[in-house]
Amino acid sequence: MVSAGAMSGSGNLMDFLDEPFPDVGTYEDFHTIDWLREKSRDTDRHRKVHAVHKDGAWALLHAVEDSGWLSLLLPGTLAGVIDLAVDWMTDLKEGICLSAFWYSHEQCCWTSNETTFEDRDKCPLWQKWSELLVKQSEGASAYILNYLMYILWALLFAFLAVSLVRVFAPYACGSGIPEIKTILSGFIIRGYWGKWTLLIKTVTLVLVVSSGLSLGKEGPLVHVACCCGNFFSSLFSKYSKNEGKRREVLSAAAAAGVSVAFGAPIGGVLFSPEEVSYYFPLKTLWRSFFAALVAAFTLRSINPFGNSRLVLFYVEYHTPWYMAELFPFILLGVFGGLWGTLFIRCNIAWCRRRKTTKLGKYPVLEVIAVTAITAIVAYPNPYTRRSTSELISELFNDCGALESSQLCDYINDPNMTRPVDDIPDRPAGVGVYTAMWQLALALIFKIVITIFTFGMKIPSGLFIPSMAVGAMAGRMVGIGVEQLAYHHHDWIIFRNWCRPGADCVTPGLYAMVGAAACLGGVTRMTVSLVVIMFELTGGLEYIVPLMAAAVTSKWVADAFGKEGIYEAHIHLNGYPFLDVKDEFTHRTLATDVMRPRRGEPPLSVLTQGSMTVEDVETLIKETDYNGFPVVVSRDSERLIGFAQRRELIPAIKNARQRQEGIVSDSVMYFTEEPPELPANSPQPLKLRRVLNLSPFTVTDHTPMETVVDIFRKLGLRQCLVTRSGRLLGIITKKDVLRHMAQMANQDPESIMFN
Amino acid sequence: MVSAGAMSGSGNLMDFLDEPFPDVGTYEDFHTIDWLREKSRDTDRHRKVHAVHKDGAWALLHAVEDSGWLSLLLPGTLAGVIDLAVDWMTDLKEGICLSAFWYSHEQCCWTSNETTFEDRDKCPLWQKWSELLVKQSEGASAYILNYLMYILWALLFAFLAVSLVRVFAPYACGSGIPEIKTILSGFIIRGYWGKWTLLIKTVTLVLVVSSGLSLGKEGPLVHVACCCGNFFSSLFSKYSKNEGKRREVLSAAAAAGVSVAFGAPIGGVLFSPEEVSYYFPLKTLWRSFFAALVAAFTLRSINPFGNSRLVLFYVEYHTPWYMAELFPFILLGVFGGLWGTLFIRCNIAWCRRRKTTKLGKYPVLEVIAVTAITAIVAYPNPYTRRSTSELISELFNDCGALESSQLCDYINDPNMTRPVDDIPDRPAGVGVYTAMWQLALALIFKIVITIFTFGMKIPSGLFIPSMAVGAMAGRMVGIGVEQLAYHHHDWIIFRNWCRPGADCVTPGLYAMVGAAACLGGVTRMTVSLVVIMFELTGGLEYIVPLMAAAVTSKWVADAFGKEGIYEAHIHLNGYPFLDVKDEFTHRTLATDVMRPRRGEPPLSVLTQGSMTVEDVETLIKETDYNGFPVVVSRDSERLIGFAQRRELIPAIKNARQRQEGIVSDSVMYFTEEPPELPANSPQPLKLRRVLNLSPFTVTDHTPMETVVDIFRKLGLRQCLVTRSGRLLGIITKKDVLRHMAQMANQDPESIMFN
Repeated sequence: MVSAGAMSGSGNLMDFLDEPFPDVGTYEDFHTIDWLREKSRDTDRHRKVHAVHKDGAWALLHAVEDSGWLSLLLPGTLAGVIDLAVDWMTDLKEGICLSAFWYSHEQCCWTSNETTFEDRDKCPLWQKWSELLVKQSEGASAYILNYLMYILWALLFAFLAVSLVRVFAPYACGSGIPEIKTILSGFIIRGYWGKWTLLIKTVTLVLVVSSGLSLGKEGPLVHVACCCGNFFSSLFSKYSKNEGKRREVLSAAAAAGVSVAFGAPIGGVLFSPEEVSYYFPLKTLWRSFFAALVAAFTLRSINPFGNSRLVLFYVEYHTPWYMAELFPFILLGVFGGLWGTLFIRCNIAWCRRRKTTKLGKYPVLEVIAVTAITAIVAYPNPYTRRSTSELISELFNDCGALESSQLCDYINDPNMTRPVDDIPDRPAGVGVYTAMWQLALALIFKIVITIFTFGMKIPSGLFIPSMAVGAMAGRMVGIGVEQLAYHHHDWIIFRNWCRPGADCVTPGLYAMVGAAACLGGVTRMTVSLVVIMFELTGGLEYIVPLMAAAVTSKWVADAFGKEGIYEAHIHLNGYPFLDVKDEFTHRTLATDVMRPRRGEPPLSVLTQGSMTVEDVETLIKETDYNGFPVVVSRDSERLIGFAQRRELIPAIKNARQRQEGIVSDSVMYFTEEPPELPANSPQPLKLRRVLNLSPFTVTDHTPMETVVDIFRKLGLRQCLVTRSGRLLGIITKKDVLRHMAQMANQDPESIMFN
Repeated sequence: MVSAGAMSGSGNLMDFLDEPFPDVGTYEDFHTIDWLREKSRDTDRHRKVHAVHKDGAWALLHAVEDSGWLSLLLPGTLAGVIDLAVDWMTDLKEGICLSAFWYSHEQCCWTSNETTFEDRDKCPLWQKWSELLVKQSEGASAYILNYLMYILWALLFAFLAVSLVRVFAPYACGSGIPEIKTILSGFIIRGYWGKWTLLIKTVTLVLVVSSGLSLGKEGPLVHVACCCGNFFSSLFSKYSKNEGKRREVLSAAAAAGVSVAFGAPIGGVLFSPEEVSYYFPLKTLWRSFFAALVAAFTLRSINPFGNSRLVLFYVEYHTPWYMAELFPFILLGVFGGLWGTLFIRCNIAWCRRRKTTKLGKYPVLEVIAVTAITAIVAYPNPYTRRSTSELISELFNDCGALESSQLCDYINDPNMTRPVDDIPDRPAGVGVYTAMWQLALALIFKIVITIFTFGMKIPSGLFIPSMAVGAMAGRMVGIGVEQLAYHHHDWIIFRNWCRPGADCVTPGLYAMVGAAACLGGVTRMTVSLVVIMFELTGGLEYIVPLMAAAVTSKWVADAFGKEGIYEAHIHLNGYPFLDVKDEFTHRTLATDVMRPRRGEPPLSVLTQGSMTVEDVETLIKETDYNGFPVVVSRDSERLIGFAQRRELIPAIKNARQRQEGIVSDSVMYFTEEPPELPANSPQPLKLRRVLNLSPFTVTDHTPMETVVDIFRKLGLRQCLVTRSGRLLGIITKKDVLRHMAQMANQDPESIMFN
């Protein structure tokens, strides 16, 4: 069925795809890839390998390549190591283990046999710095010494971290998720997944988390996991030579990253298509799932949390929730939305200031200053002194009978002996009131300091601080509702479900709902957020409160601005990111967006058989376009194809060096047969093999809505605009982004790269 | 920035989109929709409504429309009602409750106070038919009477069901999932989601499940949920008038269907994009999630399973699994893959026979015959007599201390008193050996009868029978391994993990793994399958065994044929379904696929200003194409647009009736200005508004791989092929499907619809 003409055509295509020149098909840094082309190149490679190896060998090769997915053991392992190291170094700020300095506080006391369960926090082997240095454990001077040591360690860790990042791996800073989103959407940032980035990000992540700064390890862990994925993909040419295939691996690695960050494999699988991945083929779903599971199980076998649970904050509540509680849950959702808006606005304003003023020139000083302030303010308050994950964990917890926390200092009814699990609501004791004040102060501090911390030149994640803000607010609301219900159980709203002596309000659940709301407000995640939270509790029971809060928070935050923090940072940095979620509803046409505009000089085009080598070389030198449309002649302007700059240059260079008779006056032709030339003209140069004979075209009347859809779904880099077959102009991804920014009343020049 | 030329162009476009004729924009039955067009129409509607209503009113309208999602309460309610009705009618085959005939066996005995927990199955109020009719409960004659009553009821139910389907709603038969996949991919089958289909499918589903046929209610429940979704969407013009938007609702409804079928909301959310949805915008993810949750919670509040659990088969295992057990798990995976292959081949062969021979003419007789055979063979065996869901539930269960089932008839060590949960492995008793024989017979029967049952003209799902086959095989393997481990715990493979007195093998887990393997082999689901199974157990613990079995099963089954049962039925019925998962890797070009082929008469085109009304009318009459490309002139063949038949016909008719001076000799023009005509020529007819000025084009050199990708991702209906701006031909979705079938060595003429 294949006609002769088509065969010769595909013969040429084959030449073209065989990549005769070494750097054809690779992209330059900060450029956008062409998904359709990458896909077609992969199919081609597939066919070629298939032709060489017979079925058996091919299957074997395939198996070897696929076994490479085992490198996904790495993120799990790294996450485990990071957790252990952070544990140790956080405790190092307070004291040291005498039996073995590499033990954390908990490990130190576990290994010592002298401690009972009640005194599990106090053991002679663990010494605070004051005990070790001046043999004092109480008193003002001991307190000040410990305070100073705490600040010193924090400064040391922070200084080390920011220096390492500056010297060895500038890409290791930040959470990495904005860049991951952009790169996965088809942008090239070389070195972003490099081995140095992997190493330095892992080490500095430990340092900054231990230094007590208000940041989390979740976002950076996703970046680290992607680096692992990239390291693996560099081992196989199938992935390393094809930017499209490489992004499939990276999508799966991102899922693995979330999976180990929270111990939530299914949440990780959903996070990947919902948040970071742009071009998510269905078969990636299965691989992501596999990656997420392998990573989760590696982490569990390392068991850094010491509870043989997969999850970071395992909670078990004993009471259901009641309809009336939806009201405070929705209030928490509103709080989360407001916090998200406030945080995004302030953080972006501060980051813009950092970019545009002198401030940005002293990143080390900035980190040191923020660390110093954090440490000085944080130490006196027990809720900010400890690590943020521990704080969240405590806030989420239900008050069991064995709980010694200040938050569980309720006044017990001495006459009652009850099973451990089912403690009725009790009046709050002194400890709870103290805790409320401290939590309120900690909340304000956390809100302020996080705004200044996120975006500094160190690895910094947002999930944990956001969750902490929400958990503190939630716990306070929860305790408030609980005490209200205890003291006023005759009120009409409590009468139906909260009799005296019943366990009706679980403040820990409020903390969890608050955390979900705040995280949702900042990141605008929905499904994956709820699933992650669901995996933390492991019960369907509490999905409705979580969903109610997440939806409210998203609605409230969206009312003030559609962008989540990651999109806001993408815009701030001017990355060319075409969001899948943005709907383009304006009534503009392709003709309004294409270049050249009315009055601009005409498009630089090549003709199929009338330009000389010199003409083309001049054109290439004088312009910096990535490619040139090829037309039949300047008069007819009928489009026949598209030649890429990066293929044209080596092809001409190559021909000039190796092919005889090619001089500046040689006519360059893109047709199958050379044009008819005068008798004494020099040897013509055939360049059909660098010509893309199937450029993507739309007509000038195509609505931009359709054009945006095509760019998104097919991952195009550029698209030619024609009318009745005549070339009118070109639309690049950057033009589309500029136009979208313009329509949204933003500065179109903020999109910087191409 | 919008230039004047563009404005006039968009003015015309506006005319065109304003739908001046009543039936413009609707599709005929068994036609394919154009996704890009539907999307653009929705944006247009959006803009129009936005312009009329001001922001406040618009938000309100939006809220009302979105509150319509509450109609998703319906699937949950229906599922609950179906469960209750099936319970009652299944028991009706064995006996009746004297206190209230509408009570099922369990409800009857629960409400009677005379029964103890031990005798919960026996209560005087519940009477078997023999007790009621001849006052005998034991003995051969009682047995025969009960046997006969069982067969009679089964036949009655089946006859009612098949008659109802035949008379009222022919679309209510089958599982519906192949049709749902096809329709969601953009095909029109009118009446498939009708109210009659909803009603009849619900009623007949109860009847056929109760009749004891080897079929499940899960697939049909997805269809029922989609019908509910369609019913909702018919209430709002936003959805009912736009086939694209309607499909978004249906995707969410499908998620709700799976969610209620298994009580697995997250599994449902993943099922929708993985299995049924074709065009799955991200915002649908959130709606699906919402739909799935609402449905699940409605079902729970109805509480048909009486255990206040969300899930159909809730299990709780007390022991972990061991590495060595992976071997039997993988064996079960192989079994699942083989079963899947066998089932698909035999079932398709039988269904093809039904389609092509006389057999298909007697659907009622066929159903009666299969029901009779099923009832006759099933009754004597306790594992086939009961409902299949009960069977699966029993097979999944771990043997606790209170378990009275025959499968748990182990020989207890009289010296041991142990907590209830932690029973060590014990030698099998007589009951277990009997059960093994009965299970083996039941397995063979189930395998054979399911092949003949699926595809009859009644609602029939496959999930439950497949799971039952796997669960039976799995339980038998599990008991085998358990006894092997008990009797030979000195063998090297058992020595490490199975000491005497330990509870090391859980046969119920094997049943679950077997069920997952068999379901995977038949449907080729992966992620959603594992997530559904994970939601059933509610623990991450057993994901690895489930995954191992699901992957093995998929590999084994794929080795024999890539198609799952639903794809196989789609092919059998010749639906135009372009699978997202199929990779097209052949090296053909657009020119090889386009019509007209070499030697065929040229494409029927319209010219922009030289054809008369009569010419066009003749062309429309003589051909049956859905649309015609419009070119500048027959000589230049430069493409300017595409006119759809269903817009052209009413436009001409309209003009002839209402517009003065339009006669057969009137020149029809598609340009902005009328062509220059001789002085005495009749009034020309302007038809630019029916012209689509942005038809989708590719060049003849475009690889088919790219074309297939474009058709899939953009949901195109047709695409024009050009070379240097000249029109060469057209490719329709049907051409693409035919070409793909041809490349896969299938009969291209098997694709029947367009």
